[in-house]
This record gives sequence, structure tokens and C-alpha cells, in this order.
Amino acid sequence: MRTTATRAVKIDLPVSLVRRYLEPGPIVLVSSALGDERNIMTMGWHTVMEFTPSLVGCVIAGGNHSFDLIRKSRECVINLPTTALTDIVVGVGNTTGAEIDKFRHFGLTAAPARRVKAPLVAECHANFECRLHDGALIGRYNFFIFEVVKAHVARSPRHPETLHYTGDGVFMVSGKIISRRSQFRPGML
Amino acid sequence: MRTTATRAVKIDLPVSLVRRYLEPGPIVLVSSALGDERNIMTMGWHTVMEFTPSLVGCVIAGGNHSFDLIRKSRECVINLPTTALTDIVVGVGNTTGAEIDKFRHFGLTAAPARRVKAPLVAECHANFECRLHDGALIGRYNFFIFEVVKAHVARSPRHPETLHYTGDGVFMVSGKIISRRSQFRPGML
Repeated sequence: MRTTATRAVKIDLPVSLVRRYLEPGPIVLVSSALGDERNIMTMGWHTVMEFTPSLVGCVIAGGNHSFDLIRKSRECVINLPTTALTDIVVGVGNTTGAEIDKFRHFGLTAAPARRVKAPLVAECHANFECRLHDGALIGRYNFFIFEVVKAHVARSPRHPETLHYTGDGVFMVSGKIISRRSQFRPGML
Repeated sequence: MRTTATRAVKIDLPVSLVRRYLEPGPIVLVSSALGDERNIMTMGWHTVMEFTPSLVGCVIAGGNHSFDLIRKSRECVINLPTTALTDIVVGVGNTTGAEIDKFRHFGLTAAPARRVKAPLVAECHANFECRLHDGALIGRYNFFIFEVVKAHVARSPRHPETLHYTGDGVFMVSGKIISRRSQFRPGML
């Protein structure tokens, strides 16, 4: 399976603005590396937790091949795919890094990150480099709290079509925009 | 402001299926009660954490009037609004329960819950009754881990149009569906 998604030129995004892409709740691809191993997994269970530091909490089930790579390296990259990558997202979620190199298998480009050793998935719309901030709930819930230490986003479109997983093989698609900015109090934006 | 949203007849949903509505990451309305006080707030920072027990983690900032109601009562209801309630969602997010009764002000119906004292917002598409499961991270991150103990959903539509907040007064809308069920391995749905 090869993707036709482009590797857009990206610009830096202040890490405090990561919520613009993650708060809507899209499925994301999490890339990681440990020694000469690397992997990608899909993730739907995540939430923004703070603007500054830029914190994201997420569940990475212990059964995932990525679990040990991330727990031991204490790093990952959260990559935002658009609907152009739908079949890749499904493929990544239905294979295991214990058997294949998913970058090679799916024709994805592992680009070097700036602040972590885990690679970026270059074909994604945005890439958020993360370091483990708090592992207190890993044991009980597989819940990792990461700090986003560097953020890259494609210059356009401002609001790409993203995939939101419902379970059962079904995704909802977001992309259409409603602005109610004029109805917000200044401090509430 | 009055809503024209209907109060649909609802059916019980097994609590292990709550992810169908929350994993896509919609903005939700959280209702709570303590003594003779009641309130509603908007919330965009939440994630599913487990199927069984049905766990949802979320950030409720300490500045919210709801914070003490929820922390002390150890209960809330997570209500799922559709785009029919867009202006209500914005209104609820830009007012404070310290000054108004939001149910009355926005013409919303406080319906009795089955397993908690916090009221349901009847006009919402789904209502998830929650009890505090783990408050270990409330102090450090305002992060509450709730167990959904009862779930009610409107019989149709199966995938309503929901609002996904990006910050800055802008919502993305989900509703369009992509199914890739046939590409999933049986254990991965």
C-alpha cells in the first residue's frame, strides 16, 4: 500500500496552540523509536490537558508493540493524518510492528524530528514531538501524560478534513467549520 | 435564548459502548448538582480511558463554577449536544453558574438521572451518568477520571452532527461517515 498524500512544507506552531488540532479529537498516528526499532500505531484515546506546558494525555494499551518503545524511550511523535490517509490509518491500526516495519510497508516517510529521536510521519498534516511529562498513571491505566516540545504543521489548509473514530470500523469526518467567535467573551476564546 | 432542539425518546446504551460517541472528541455539556445548586459547563478536554469499567478522563479547570459541585458531589452527567444546539453550547461556555441558572437561562430541561443526582440535559442527543472513579490527578492537573454508570442515547440518527472545538471560537463539524469495517481484523474493531 502506497500513499499519494503529499509531504507539505511545514511551519513551526507555538506548542501552546496544539489544541487547535488535537482538541477536536481526531485519530492520530503515534510514531516511536528505541535503538534501531521504530513503529507507528493509531490512537484515538487522547486529550489536551494544559496549554503551558503543552500537555496531552493518552492511553496506549500495553498490548501494542509501541508500548515498550514509548515507555522506555519516554518519547513519541503524535502525527495528524487527514482523510487522504484513511486507508493508511486503517492499515496501521490493523497490523503490528512486531511483524512489519510499518514505515516501509505503507510507504511512509520517517523524517527526523528536532527535539526527540522518534521520527515524524512526513505525510501527515501536523507533527507534535512529545516527551513523557508524567508517568504516574501508566501502571494503572496505561495513561501517558506527554509534553509537546515542538510542533510542525502544514501551512494550508487551516482546517483539514480529519478522521474521528467511533469504533466498529467507522470514522466520522470533520472539516466543515462553524465560527461563533463574535459570541465569545474575550477571555473565553 | 431558547432552544428548538427536541427532547428525543432515548434508549439505554451499554456503558461499554460510550466510546462510539465520545472517542470522536465532540464538545460536551457537563451537568452537575450539589445541594440545591445545579450547573452546566462546556468541556472539550476529555478522553475515553477504558471499556469496562467504562472510564472517561477529563479536565475541569478550577476556575469553573462547576468544579466544586463536581469535586464535592463526586458525580456529573456528560451530555452530547448536536449542531442543533450550537448557540446554546456557545452561550453555556460564555456564562457562569455563579451568576445565572443556566438551565433556566437557556431554556434547557433538567431531567432526572437514574444513578446520580446530577440532572440530564434532556435536549442533548446522549447523556452519560458519571461517578468519580479516581481523583488522584485532580490536584495536579484538574484531571477527573469518571466511570460512566448509565448511558442514554436518542434512537436516531445513529451518527448525529457534532461540534468539535478548535479554540478561537471555531468549531469543526462531524457527521459524514466513512466505514472501513471490511478492512479491519476481527479483534481490532
